[in-house]
Amino acid sequence: MRLVTFLHQGRPACGLVQGDAILVAPSSPYADLRAVIEADAVAEFARLCEGSGERVPLEGTTLLPVIPNPGKILCVGLNYETHRRETGRDVVENPTIFTRFADSQAAHGQPLLRPRVSTDFDFEGELAVVIGKGGRYIARDRAMEHVAGYSCYNDGSVRDWQRHTHQFTPGKNFPQTGAFGPFLVTADEVTDLDPLRLTTRVNGQVVQDTTLDHMIFDVPRIIEYCSSFTPLNPGDVIATGTPGGVGAKRQPPLWLKPGDSVEVEITGIGLLRNGIADEAA
Amino acid sequence: MRLVTFLHQGRPACGLVQGDAILVAPSSPYADLRAVIEADAVAEFARLCEGSGERVPLEGTTLLPVIPNPGKILCVGLNYETHRRETGRDVVENPTIFTRFADSQAAHGQPLLRPRVSTDFDFEGELAVVIGKGGRYIARDRAMEHVAGYSCYNDGSVRDWQRHTHQFTPGKNFPQTGAFGPFLVTADEVTDLDPLRLTTRVNGQVVQDTTLDHMIFDVPRIIEYCSSFTPLNPGDVIATGTPGGVGAKRQPPLWLKPGDSVEVEITGIGLLRNGIADEAA
Repeated sequence: MRLVTFLHQGRPACGLVQGDAILVAPSSPYADLRAVIEADAVAEFARLCEGSGERVPLEGTTLLPVIPNPGKILCVGLNYETHRRETGRDVVENPTIFTRFADSQAAHGQPLLRPRVSTDFDFEGELAVVIGKGGRYIARDRAMEHVAGYSCYNDGSVRDWQRHTHQFTPGKNFPQTGAFGPFLVTADEVTDLDPLRLTTRVNGQVVQDTTLDHMIFDVPRIIEYCSSFTPLNPGDVIATGTPGGVGAKRQPPLWLKPGDSVEVEITGIGLLRNGIADEAA
Repeated sequence: MRLVTFLHQGRPACGLVQGDAILVAPSSPYADLRAVIEADAVAEFARLCEGSGERVPLEGTTLLPVIPNPGKILCVGLNYETHRRETGRDVVENPTIFTRFADSQAAHGQPLLRPRVSTDFDFEGELAVVIGKGGRYIARDRAMEHVAGYSCYNDGSVRDWQRHTHQFTPGKNFPQTGAFGPFLVTADEVTDLDPLRLTTRVNGQVVQDTTLDHMIFDVPRIIEYCSSFTPLNPGDVIATGTPGGVGAKRQPPLWLKPGDSVEVEITGIGLLRNGIADEAA
């Protein structure tokens, strides 16, 4: 199934995508997609949507981030060898984890904002994992039972602010820089992540291209690690890291600028597209 | 004024501290202290508490973290020269910022948990700033208008997990490791932060001792910097960094262990005391 969060009659709503339409359940008891996942009610919610008969066309609808209000957004840095090498970072035995605040997110189709304090604005195409069943100290071999589904993420990064100190927080939390969408593809639709192809394009040119089997720490290992230091809860998001090819490491650097278009596509998961705009002065 | 969050008849409540009692306002329209601050209603809330006539003794009452549910917890690393030097870190031109999740917090009087995966559990006595009026791109010379008040913070750190990679997140987010309390002292009660004395004691022995004028980046500069990359909202918390003397840099290291008692005291702000316990197996 593909679930989506969108603006419906001016208010946030969630629904089920079928073909080129969103099926909406006005009588759904769930406030949002996070609440659906918390209630372990994805199948019930899909039935409600299918039975309601209300549909809106996908095209022209304003989407919102897949989960607009995750309790936690955990991001994995340097999780592909191609990216680790281009940054010159050491090999490490554990995943590199930093965080985003929910208000740094953006939706499919919404412009990413180049903040007024920087021009070093960069893309990072990634697989996003949405947690279903919560837990602490989740064992690697049970980790996939805790995944609700997947989406695309563009972990838009303000590189000079990311490098102010050794902690990444500032460069990863500017408003409307973390694109998340378009849909949540439920885990039952993805039998094997490894062969899926992750491609990032800037103005149509491929800038990142990998298959997901190139992750240094795979999804079960990331879930095991993160849940060791913090409880994972339904609707939490893990952005699993970006492959080589980021703009900062090109000669000359390829910075995103107003008018550009960035696409993050993962086969079987979706195509996330965002323009770039300058933050209002 | 001193405001407190506590368990009242089994449920979270907030009140006004007067002497050795908490004044409670059962008719308060505010769900919690964050809501009081969001409504810019501290004075009104205090009047409600004073007028209600309901009081509970402070002693024996179970406190909760001052703000149990902040939207953002921003932590400043390496913000005293004594601590920067003991860690061997470079001088930098901007504050080092990492984050905590709200569920990593603990209250005054509640034990801090040494997690089952580590014995390298360390203290960090700090001044906590609670944001009142929110904002983005807050100028340094207006920053203090955005402060609701202050409290003590013990940024309990699991050092080996903090050092797994260059990102601090894992070592700073174990459940019940970040003590925050006992009270919110409103900003009007603190005319000058500089001369206030911050002292950390382990089992009665002083291990950290500084005045707040030794911060490398002062509170206005921290607010200016953080609000440049993320909107600050009412009830957000900034832990402003710890001075030299942490357990990890002692010879031999001084790790916290079950049965220990840690106190963080700031003159005019409060005394935060926590025991140490092992996380349940």
